Amino acid sequence: MLKEEFVLSKTIRPRVDDLDLPVGKKTRLYRIFEEFSPGKGRVMILPIDQGLEHGPVDFFENPHAANPEYELSLAVEGGFSAIAFHIGLAEKYLKPFAGKIPVILKLNGKTNIPSDAQAFSPLTGTVEDAVRLGADAVGYTLYVGSPAQDRDIRQFMEVRKEAERYGMPVVMWAYPRGEAINAKGGRDSLYAIEYAARVACELGAGVGKRNFSKLENEKQKDCPAPYNTLKVSLEEAIQRIVTAAGRTFVIMSGGEKVEDDLLLERVKTALEAGATGVIFGRNLWQRPYTQGLAIAQKISKLMAEV
Amino acid sequence: MLKEEFVLSKTIRPRVDDLDLPVGKKTRLYRIFEEFSPGKGRVMILPIDQGLEHGPVDFFENPHAANPEYELSLAVEGGFSAIAFHIGLAEKYLKPFAGKIPVILKLNGKTNIPSDAQAFSPLTGTVEDAVRLGADAVGYTLYVGSPAQDRDIRQFMEVRKEAERYGMPVVMWAYPRGEAINAKGGRDSLYAIEYAARVACELGAGVGKRNFSKLENEKQKDCPAPYNTLKVSLEEAIQRIVTAAGRTFVIMSGGEKVEDDLLLERVKTALEAGATGVIFGRNLWQRPYTQGLAIAQKISKLMAEV
Amino acid sequence: MLKEEFVLSKTIRPRVDDLDLPVGKKTRLYRIFEEFSPGKGRVMILPIDQGLEHGPVDFFENPHAANPEYELSLAVEGGFSAIAFHIGLAEKYLKPFAGKIPVILKLNGKTNIPSDAQAFSPLTGTVEDAVRLGADAVGYTLYVGSPAQDRDIRQFMEVRKEAERYGMPVVMWAYPRGEAINAKGGRDSLYAIEYAARVACELGAGVGKRNFSKLENEKQKDCPAPYNTLKVSLEEAIQRIVTAAGRTFVIMSGGEKVEDDLLLERVKTALEAGATGVIFGRNLWQRPYTQGLAIAQKISKLMAEV
Amino acid sequence: MLKEEFVLSKTIRPRVDDLDLPVGKKTRLYRIFEEFSPGKGRVMILPIDQGLEHGPVDFFENPHAANPEYELSLAVEGGFSAIAFHIGLAEKYLKPFAGKIPVILKLNGKTNIPSDAQAFSPLTGTVEDAVRLGADAVGYTLYVGSPAQDRDIRQFMEVRKEAERYGMPVVMWAYPRGEAINAKGGRDSLYAIEYAARVACELGAGVGKRNFSKLENEKQKDCPAPYNTLKVSLEEAIQRIVTAAGRTFVIMSGGEKVEDDLLLERVKTALEAGATGVIFGRNLWQRPYTQGLAIAQKISKLMAEV
Amino acid sequence: MLKEEFVLSKTIRPRVDDLDLPVGKKTRLYRIFEEFSPGKGRVMILPIDQGLEHGPVDFFENPHAANPEYELSLAVEGGFSAIAFHIGLAEKYLKPFAGKIPVILKLNGKTNIPSDAQAFSPLTGTVEDAVRLGADAVGYTLYVGSPAQDRDIRQFMEVRKEAERYGMPVVMWAYPRGEAINAKGGRDSLYAIEYAARVACELGAGVGKRNFSKLENEKQKDCPAPYNTLKVSLEEAIQRIVTAAGRTFVIMSGGEKVEDDLLLERVKTALEAGATGVIFGRNLWQRPYTQGLAIAQKISKLMAEV
Repeated sequence: MLKEEFVLSKTIRPRVDDLDLPVGKKTRLYRIFEEFSPGKGRVMILPIDQGLEHGPVDFFENPHAANPEYELSLAVEGGFSAIAFHIGLAEKYLKPFAGKIPVILKLNGKTNIPSDAQAFSPLTGTVEDAVRLGADAVGYTLYVGSPAQDRDIRQFMEVRKEAERYGMPVVMWAYPRGEAINAKGGRDSLYAIEYAARVACELGAGVGKRNFSKLENEKQKDCPAPYNTLKVSLEEAIQRIVTAAGRTFVIMSGGEKVEDDLLLERVKTALEAGATGVIFGRNLWQRPYTQGLAIAQKISKLMAEV
Repeated sequence: MLKEEFVLSKTIRPRVDDLDLPVGKKTRLYRIFEEFSPGKGRVMILPIDQGLEHGPVDFFENPHAANPEYELSLAVEGGFSAIAFHIGLAEKYLKPFAGKIPVILKLNGKTNIPSDAQAFSPLTGTVEDAVRLGADAVGYTLYVGSPAQDRDIRQFMEVRKEAERYGMPVVMWAYPRGEAINAKGGRDSLYAIEYAARVACELGAGVGKRNFSKLENEKQKDCPAPYNTLKVSLEEAIQRIVTAAGRTFVIMSGGEKVEDDLLLERVKTALEAGATGVIFGRNLWQRPYTQGLAIAQKISKLMAEV
Repeated sequence: MLKEEFVLSKTIRPRVDDLDLPVGKKTRLYRIFEEFSPGKGRVMILPIDQGLEHGPVDFFENPHAANPEYELSLAVEGGFSAIAFHIGLAEKYLKPFAGKIPVILKLNGKTNIPSDAQAFSPLTGTVEDAVRLGADAVGYTLYVGSPAQDRDIRQFMEVRKEAERYGMPVVMWAYPRGEAINAKGGRDSLYAIEYAARVACELGAGVGKRNFSKLENEKQKDCPAPYNTLKVSLEEAIQRIVTAAGRTFVIMSGGEKVEDDLLLERVKTALEAGATGVIFGRNLWQRPYTQGLAIAQKISKLMAEV
Repeated sequence: MLKEEFVLSKTIRPRVDDLDLPVGKKTRLYRIFEEFSPGKGRVMILPIDQGLEHGPVDFFENPHAANPEYELSLAVEGGFSAIAFHIGLAEKYLKPFAGKIPVILKLNGKTNIPSDAQAFSPLTGTVEDAVRLGADAVGYTLYVGSPAQDRDIRQFMEVRKEAERYGMPVVMWAYPRGEAINAKGGRDSLYAIEYAARVACELGAGVGKRNFSKLENEKQKDCPAPYNTLKVSLEEAIQRIVTAAGRTFVIMSGGEKVEDDLLLERVKTALEAGATGVIFGRNLWQRPYTQGLAIAQKISKLMAEV
Repeated sequence: MLKEEFVLSKTIRPRVDDLDLPVGKKTRLYRIFEEFSPGKGRVMILPIDQGLEHGPVDFFENPHAANPEYELSLAVEGGFSAIAFHIGLAEKYLKPFAGKIPVILKLNGKTNIPSDAQAFSPLTGTVEDAVRLGADAVGYTLYVGSPAQDRDIRQFMEVRKEAERYGMPVVMWAYPRGEAINAKGGRDSLYAIEYAARVACELGAGVGKRNFSKLENEKQKDCPAPYNTLKVSLEEAIQRIVTAAGRTFVIMSGGEKVEDDLLLERVKTALEAGATGVIFGRNLWQRPYTQGLAIAQKISKLMAEV
């Protein structure tokens, strides 16, 4: 469809059927993005890797959450599209829930004890593990802009190649991180997050994931021009991120727990701006079980309606 | 078994039959945890890798202990569940004792001569070595939080994959170590040990091992909140560690030699708090032979009764 | 054809038929350099990897360009010889354009967030990916003179070997880069660019690519003699680069956007000096679509005529 | 053979028949330790790797020694149990002497030009080379306590695995080395040498090799307790080393050339203390040929008689 | 041939028939050292890798030399024994000259832009490339004494193993280099060059190559004793180097261009001292073609007569 004057199509959230995927990848993504979708091809993902990434400190607010059965129950009952965790939890806790909730097996991770200046997450599992465990996708964390990004991009390439062989979708957690990005406006700047979205797209991730942008940031002045003076609303920011990600799904993450109304408002903004879904961990499982279910239902409803 | 309001089950020590293990792993773990158990699925493990980790300095108190036959004899006569050592001792000393005591082949180690700031233990053996020698498990030391943890997690992943292939259980010695944890309350803080327990669980270790927590620590104030001000008893601390480990067995280690009553009291506390067993080296083989046997019998009796 | 007094043949731009290539490489290069040539075996290549190398900051001038369909449309309609990009864009955007434009799959890249002092681009794809996607060449960026050049030369060697196996041509982006070249006159010096051209030739790249030399450089005095005092015109400089490259095609790149007349003048100079073509990114797709097409046609016409 | 009160057997020098070796290893070790023994299972080994480790500087005292035929002749005529050298000398000089003297092929080495602070010896050959050349053992130098010991232990593990496959014995030159041991009493302390002996035993070396301890050392005070104040005779020191080595043969090395009587006295002490033999290089081949033969005969006689 | 009093044979230059070589290596070396010898098994080798190692700066004196056809013509017409270059030049320029001049394919190299403090040359090609291109030997540059020598020795070992498999001779360019040798008298000291010669011999290089020693050196006092005070003539120095190299051929290199008489005198001295040949690059191809041919003929004549 070539044309003399190129007309940029309005940013449109892609759906699985719109993508030209190998059959294995399509089959698996279809489960997550359509069969287990709250509606309209949107997704709601529950991650439980904070025990590795942050330590048990995240479980003080709700000690029940230290038991992975808590998150698995919540994911199944709350109508989530997938649960995301590492090999250890998958092997020890998944079987009673197997088939009732799609799994994204996280393939790399680290503790937050050493400094993040040269952030890099080594492999904790493989695509073969994901195949053996019946997972529908694998997850990979790339620290965009880290001085260790050379090892990271190479390691991702090898994961992508193995995933290609098995028809396994790859979700990239593309996080700006490390001392270099800290000096250029920080990991939460629109500059950093947009850049990370584009990196995920160019490197061949099938599904991307981004933080909500914290725009009102005193470090903005350190960003490269024109980001250092850019004034955008949260919705515009997310639109920019969705545009940068191109045909890579954008799943917004929530970070620390916030109150209900703010959370729902953020979800609505993200959906309207073109995000395909959300990945909320602490905002879900740091709540008492019934409250967690309740907020999950509200998000689910929003996704089906907006 | 989903329920509207999630009820956190009381911390319960798992037994081998409770875990969903591949048949090879179950067969091997069953020998250690049931056939050679003092009772109730508990274990008593004798390690003799201090000659590599600390050097012959540990043998001054009881020079007989420098001969690995000493530990092998003690393990067999004392009714231990397993002996843990490196390939060299296994190849040179095991045959007369083979079949009489299960073996955990330690797969990585180091000397303590260089600084521990970037602690990392390279491989000294492989899962194939363990299979060839008839071992019932392999042991791996992961230095949680070390600046070298990226290499460590990756190396463990490769061990785990090979162990998966052969149905070989993996015991992880998950030790907080290195300059980063020293700056956050130190390697003996509850923060560090709980975190390490969770890491073992998420990374897929089948059996974890932890130090006794030294809670009365002047460095506690450097731990991340809320650990910096947390007041817990030793029993509560061990409960927290057992909870963090989830379905990973917790085997408490003893460290330096202490007097009998204190040792037995610690064992009792650990068992009551949900630990599955103990791994005592210097506390056993730094004693004269008959005294070592005597304390082993007392521990064994405690395990069968508590 | 030996002779008593060696007569240096005048620098002559080689054509595909002049080179002694394996049949697979010749078939593929023929598509780019003859079938899709504007004429006379010259080429016009459109790169779209700036989203990875520089980030979305390059798309502010023309936001349409953030959508890879923009560059693909421009390449097809504008009569380009090839488009060059990474695996992610190839997998997600190429199919509607497949067969209508030859592809050079870029195999390594990085973000510009960390410092370039030790510049090195890790692999993002493989020659097998290129074969699978029907690409006619692969692209590799070597940072000549970087302190990391040992890893880079080795990595290139492995790419070259794999390319040899599949009859896949290799285009080398041979860029002087890093703290060492900065201290010897900088990456834009004739010294650096000539050296890089020779490196591409000796290391076995099939097609080389060079920046336009910025000769009027205050850092020239830091170059090794005799470059520190050398006075040459732009045409002479390009002739020297073409000579240094030997039987490696020289494709000049444009860098930042400049105005039309200057751009066309530069192309003419490059062609007259023996360059085989140009690779223009921002100078093309930072323009509105019809203007991009217009300048592409002017360059194309120049190539067929000069 | 379990007993209620463990009786530590007096340190006894093991012989090949006492060890439980795979048949290939036993066959090969038997040649060195019995067939070519001066008697009583003792050995006398001639090393000629100083040209690599120290450079030709070691040949000034006796320029004839620069020709490896000198050492090969001396080894055959002097009744040595084996000669130890690198692949280059084996390939270029061995054939006329092949079968007349067992060979220990050294598999790693380095020059002494760079600092030893992070000492590490890379591979110069492989176990397959040893098999191809008919060697009866391979030699590996491990720098115990070096900050590079992680790479070293791993590299040794891979050598040991390959040796296992071919039934090839491994002799470990376990040398304390590097800045860390320098700060703890130095490489010649009993602490360091005993520790190294134990490391060789635990890592699975079949035959160990140790320096003579230089006990009267002003750095002793820097050793960890109780070594810092330990008072032992040379014989007691060697007994401790033999005990630490366990079932690993202890072959004492001589270091720099000393006068005859002192050398013979040292050998006698070592043999009485349980060492299995000596490995003397400069003390042999820095002498004129007939003198070298003469001292070799004296050592040989001592070995058969003491 | 053992004897009671070892008689050091006078240093004798070995010929191919004197060495015990595998048949493939002998066949290939025979072409270079006998079939293409100027006489008496001596060799004259033309290297053209300076474009990679030094950059096009070396071509200012004779711009024709930038075209590799220049060196190939000179090598064929001048009666050289072999030409030495990298994969890129071999693939692009060799075919018209193939069979007319033996090729030594250089397998590693680097630019001289970064500092040489930690000198190391990564692989640019493989033994398989050499086999595919009909080369008669491969060349490897080892930076003896560089702090990176651990990687270098290991890399060489892998090249040697592959060469063994294919019966391919290995020529080692054993160059003292890096900050450690600079502190011990420098790379041109007799100490350094003799040491490098021995390293080549012990590591298994089939043919070695050395610089002419620059003896009158103010840094000599920094050499280890007795080199720091050694007084030797150039001929004695070369004899020492030839002795240190043992059965490794010594090919002397020339370095920067010098005038004819000095060059011929140096060649004569080297031949008389036992060197097997010369490898002259800039001294040949920095001259006008007929002058280059003329000096080549003079060297050739000298080789046949001395």
